[in-house]
Amino acid sequence: MSNLKLTILGNGSAVPTSFSNPSSQLLNYKGKQFMIDCGEGTQMQMIKFKIKHRNLNYIFISHLHGDHFYGLIGLLSTFHLYGREKPLIIFAPEGLGNVIKTQLEVSKTVLKYDLQIKVLGNVNNELLLDDEDFQIHAFELKHSVPSWGFVFREKLKQRKIKKEFIVDKELNVEQIISIKKGNDFIDNTGKIHSNSLITNPPPESLSYAYCSDTAYYENILEYIEGVTYLYHEATFDKTMEKVAIERKHSTAEHAAMIAKKANVKKLLLGHFSARFSNPGVLLEEAKEIFPNTILSREGQTYFIRET
Amino acid sequence: MSNLKLTILGNGSAVPTSFSNPSSQLLNYKGKQFMIDCGEGTQMQMIKFKIKHRNLNYIFISHLHGDHFYGLIGLLSTFHLYGREKPLIIFAPEGLGNVIKTQLEVSKTVLKYDLQIKVLGNVNNELLLDDEDFQIHAFELKHSVPSWGFVFREKLKQRKIKKEFIVDKELNVEQIISIKKGNDFIDNTGKIHSNSLITNPPPESLSYAYCSDTAYYENILEYIEGVTYLYHEATFDKTMEKVAIERKHSTAEHAAMIAKKANVKKLLLGHFSARFSNPGVLLEEAKEIFPNTILSREGQTYFIRET
Repeated sequence: MSNLKLTILGNGSAVPTSFSNPSSQLLNYKGKQFMIDCGEGTQMQMIKFKIKHRNLNYIFISHLHGDHFYGLIGLLSTFHLYGREKPLIIFAPEGLGNVIKTQLEVSKTVLKYDLQIKVLGNVNNELLLDDEDFQIHAFELKHSVPSWGFVFREKLKQRKIKKEFIVDKELNVEQIISIKKGNDFIDNTGKIHSNSLITNPPPESLSYAYCSDTAYYENILEYIEGVTYLYHEATFDKTMEKVAIERKHSTAEHAAMIAKKANVKKLLLGHFSARFSNPGVLLEEAKEIFPNTILSREGQTYFIRET
Repeated sequence: MSNLKLTILGNGSAVPTSFSNPSSQLLNYKGKQFMIDCGEGTQMQMIKFKIKHRNLNYIFISHLHGDHFYGLIGLLSTFHLYGREKPLIIFAPEGLGNVIKTQLEVSKTVLKYDLQIKVLGNVNNELLLDDEDFQIHAFELKHSVPSWGFVFREKLKQRKIKKEFIVDKELNVEQIISIKKGNDFIDNTGKIHSNSLITNPPPESLSYAYCSDTAYYENILEYIEGVTYLYHEATFDKTMEKVAIERKHSTAEHAAMIAKKANVKKLLLGHFSARFSNPGVLLEEAKEIFPNTILSREGQTYFIRET
C-alpha cells in the first residue's frame, strides 16, 4: 500500500480500439483525486472500474487533441445532473474554455457548480497546486500543439524520532515537535543528543510524472528528475522512429532513454498506437535501456512506492 | 431477415450506467447505414458490437442534449484519422455546427472529407432524404429544447405478377414491366386479363419511426401513422408521470398510447432512466395498452418486418 496510487482509465492513442480507450488516469493521494486527461468514454471507464468521483476536484488536460479531452463535457454534465455543488478546477491549454462554453450553451445548461478553467502556458514549470503535503507543477512537452506534462511531488517529510528514545526520555509533545524539526535534544543531565543520532531519515517523498504526447525531449529532464513513477507515452516502436519524429511522438526506446537520464525509479509506458494489440514489443524495447519498465494496463491501480 | 434492420448502440438516458450507454442507433437499409443520435461512447459501442461504418453517410441528431450528440466529435475525428474521403451529411438542430467547428479549431484539425451539417427546423414534416426506394422525414417533438423525430418509409412497391401467369403466357420484359405498373394484359386471343387477377399485392413497404426525447404529444401521430416499428422514449414509469410531464419526457404508458393511436405494428421502448436497471416494469406497463411492445436492448439488431 501507499498514500499515492494511480489508476489507468485509458492508455490508447488517437482512435479507440476493442482493447483500448483514449487517455485518462486518476491519481489518488490520501483520498484526494486528480484526473489527468479525459478522453471520450472516461466516465464509462470509471463506472466500469467502480471508481467514485466524490473527491475529484481537479482535472488536468495535457493538450487539446480530442483523445485527451472529448470525454470532459460528458463528465461535467454528469456531475451537474448528479447535483454536484463543490467547485471543480480544470487546468488546460488555451481554448478549452470556449469549447466547454459552446457545448453548455447549445444544450442550455447552466452548471450547478462553480467550474474554473485555468489556462496553462504562461510560464514553464508553473506551480499549479501547493498543498500542505504536496505540489503539482506543469512543464512543457514537444508536440504538434501546445502540450503539457504534470509532476506531483510530496513535500519533504520530517525525520522520525527513534521509538526507544521517546520511551527512554519520556518526551513530551513540545520536545517531539522540536526534535522532528531537526533540533538536537538536551536531557535532564544537560547532555546534548545530536538530532542525527536520535532520529531516522524521513520516509521517502513519493512523486509521479505524466508525460503526455511528446517527441523525445530532454528539456523535461530537470522537471521529472528522480520521480518514483514516470508515465511516458510510447506510441510507436523503434522501427517506426521516423514516423514518431514526424508526428512528434515517442518510441518506447525514447521513453526509456528519458527515464534513464532522469533517474526515475520506475517507468510506466502508455499511449500505445492502435496497431499494438499486444504492446509486449514496446516493453522489451524499453527494458533494454531501462529495466524497471512496465506496461500500463487499463483498469489497473498502481501503488506508487520506491520498492 | 429483412431489408431494414435496426441496431441499438445505446438506449439509456442522461447519465451512463454500468448497464446502459447514451442514445445512438443504426438503421440499415439494404446495406446503407443511417445513424440516429450519437451519445458519448457511440464509436466504442460500434467497435464492441463489431459494426463497420463503411456505408455510413448520414447522421441524424434529434436534439442538442449531450446524451444525444457528445459522441459525434469523436466519431468525426476517427473518420478523419482513418482517411475517410466520402462526404458525410449530418441533420441536426441549429447550433451543432458551431460546436463541431469550435472543437475542430481548437485541435487544429482540418477534416479530410466534406462534412455538411444541415439545420433541422425550417418546416415540420421536412423531407430530408428522397431515395429511389425510400424517404426520410423529420417531425417536431415536444421537449425542453427543440427536438425532432425521424421517420423512414420505403416507397410503395409494385404488384407482383403471379408466377404461373408469366410461364403460361411466356411474358417478355416489356409485358412484365407494363403489368407491374398496374396495366391489364391482352393475350394473343384478344382476351383481357384484369391486373388485379394476374398479380399479387406488392410486398409490404417497411417503415420505422424514432421518437427521441418528448413529452406525450399527439401531434406526431400523423407522421408516424402505421409504421412497422416505432421506437419511442419511455424514460419513466407511470408512477412518475408528474416528473415526466415536468421534464417533458414520456412514461411507458405514454409511449404505448402513442403506438396504439398511431396504429403502428410494433413498439420498441428506450431511453430508460438510470433508475431502471431492469426496465421490465416499463414493458409490463406498456403491454397493458399496446401488447406488441418490446424493450430495446443494446447490441441487439432488430429485423423490421410485419410479422
